[in-house]
Amino acid sequence: MRPLAPGATIGILGGGQLGRLLALEAARLGFDAHVYDDEPDGPAARAAARATCAGWEDEAALRRFADAVDLVTYEWENVPVAAVEALAAHGAVIRPGVASLRAAQDRATEKALFASLGIPTVAWREVDSRAQLDEAVAALGPGLLKRRRLGYDGKGQARVDGPAAAESAWARLAGAPLIYEALARFEREISVLLARGVDGTCAAWDPPENLHRDGILVESLAPARVSAETAAAAVEMSRRVADRLDHVGVIAVEWFVLPGGALLANELAPRVHNSGHWTPEACRTGQFEQHVRAVAGWPLGDPTRHAPARLENLLGADVERWRALAAAGARVTVYGKDEARPGRKMGHAVWVG
Amino acid sequence: MRPLAPGATIGILGGGQLGRLLALEAARLGFDAHVYDDEPDGPAARAAARATCAGWEDEAALRRFADAVDLVTYEWENVPVAAVEALAAHGAVIRPGVASLRAAQDRATEKALFASLGIPTVAWREVDSRAQLDEAVAALGPGLLKRRRLGYDGKGQARVDGPAAAESAWARLAGAPLIYEALARFEREISVLLARGVDGTCAAWDPPENLHRDGILVESLAPARVSAETAAAAVEMSRRVADRLDHVGVIAVEWFVLPGGALLANELAPRVHNSGHWTPEACRTGQFEQHVRAVAGWPLGDPTRHAPARLENLLGADVERWRALAAAGARVTVYGKDEARPGRKMGHAVWVG
Repeated sequence: MRPLAPGATIGILGGGQLGRLLALEAARLGFDAHVYDDEPDGPAARAAARATCAGWEDEAALRRFADAVDLVTYEWENVPVAAVEALAAHGAVIRPGVASLRAAQDRATEKALFASLGIPTVAWREVDSRAQLDEAVAALGPGLLKRRRLGYDGKGQARVDGPAAAESAWARLAGAPLIYEALARFEREISVLLARGVDGTCAAWDPPENLHRDGILVESLAPARVSAETAAAAVEMSRRVADRLDHVGVIAVEWFVLPGGALLANELAPRVHNSGHWTPEACRTGQFEQHVRAVAGWPLGDPTRHAPARLENLLGADVERWRALAAAGARVTVYGKDEARPGRKMGHAVWVG
Repeated sequence: MRPLAPGATIGILGGGQLGRLLALEAARLGFDAHVYDDEPDGPAARAAARATCAGWEDEAALRRFADAVDLVTYEWENVPVAAVEALAAHGAVIRPGVASLRAAQDRATEKALFASLGIPTVAWREVDSRAQLDEAVAALGPGLLKRRRLGYDGKGQARVDGPAAAESAWARLAGAPLIYEALARFEREISVLLARGVDGTCAAWDPPENLHRDGILVESLAPARVSAETAAAAVEMSRRVADRLDHVGVIAVEWFVLPGGALLANELAPRVHNSGHWTPEACRTGQFEQHVRAVAGWPLGDPTRHAPARLENLLGADVERWRALAAAGARVTVYGKDEARPGRKMGHAVWVG
């Protein structure tokens, strides 16, 4: 497919804040965005030229959507693969492709992908029974029991320190395919965000360092406090992941940095990523513009960072601090969500320099 | 009125590219934009949460619009004053106010405003008859005959070098109130863009230098090649204009720089301005964000420039160069207009650093 010229319509699967910020950058580049989501009037739909509200299994709606857009991308890695395959069957060009979605939707598939590329991760085992959990805990020591699918922001997982915790973790999570991961004794967490173009060229931002609370990202610092060698190694391995998936667009890979600088891959997100929300403010090209450029087949932009940056997520009622943050010099972005439930990502603030 | 919190709706009068870029930044800050224009499906309407297409004299539509928004701003200085007064009569808060509109809509009012503030301009006279034109040419020498109202991008004006030119200029422009301006023998043109908040605080960007072709801006360079004293004097006088108008939002004042550095005010635009299109790329706070912050009653952002920048307007078929420009490292913005007529502003490219 030739590069998409301004005036074309980019379909976005998923209607949250990432879709909203993608839609805004698509518009700045002269595209119309058309958002597809199963919830009405979400953050992305209200910022897009057009929106479809329909279920992920509504084949007629998917077909109409495929006909109405020139290209389809996604802002959420849990878009059902069947929906994406239905779009492709109806002739839609999907970027990134279904391989990236599949890899990100199942923690076991994801870990196997890392392993097949020689990329180290924590030790892990699939767990399909109570007995397998006990075996995994005995073999790997303290760890995390996680649902293989549909987990995010620390949801769908439980810490296991001993037999009693194993019992309660099992009670909580059993009934879906699970994975047990040994605890990583890491010094810090970083993420690599990079964009890969249709022609395979890659452009990576300086990796940020990420701070979580209760499994939710609360802060990212760019650059991460790691050596240049560690950062370069993380970028190089992340690039191998993008190449293997023949990924087109932005991809994020999270890494644990061990004492001494060794790296373990944690997980990947085949999309723009919360830990890259500082890039529009501090870099020549931000992640939302870059993703649109990549999927549209445009030349990638320069990801060079012109200043250090700190990203602060605004969770729940934090968003009510918009005025104080703006007065103190932060650049504030608010997602347009109706209800500021505790822990809900409502916006973010970026401090540059 | 208290500051507008995210979730509120900002009404934008005018549906062109400036409205589009304002709507996108309003959305990034968590607002919904509602565009009012008399043409359907323009650049702004397609990027806004809501749009009304109705005439400027449609009182019922204006009333519904006033009811549907929390605040009204404008992207175009030729919005009829009567429409804005109708909105105000229906309780709408208008920022900037009608004084800024009035000053910008009539070249004679504008020149009189500058004079009342002790700000120098070229010599000028109102011209309402052929005889007055001859008198003006005799008194002021070569100059420009201009319609007092509704001129832009060099439209509605004619150069007068002698009697024959006076005749043809009169034939072309007579029938509307006119003004005759002496030619300024300037070295360069610069513009001051500044934002003024509800509380009267101002934040100015470094003035850019502007290059025109056939009366249309083709390029801006930031910073302008003028001394720090000249730039500071232009900012100080522009600020006096904003204060006098009790302006809220971004305002642009264009200046002629004479040999030696003396300044003559050319004209003002009570809105975001083409010559500030490099600010989002090269400054901590760009003009579109800043205008939204100002009219919403938010604290103003930091306008500090972090790199030199060059803005290139993409006129007509220039916009087809998007791919080459993006490949060469420019940040491209495209306005989403259907038809690339010659000279029409279709987009712009910014070179940073």
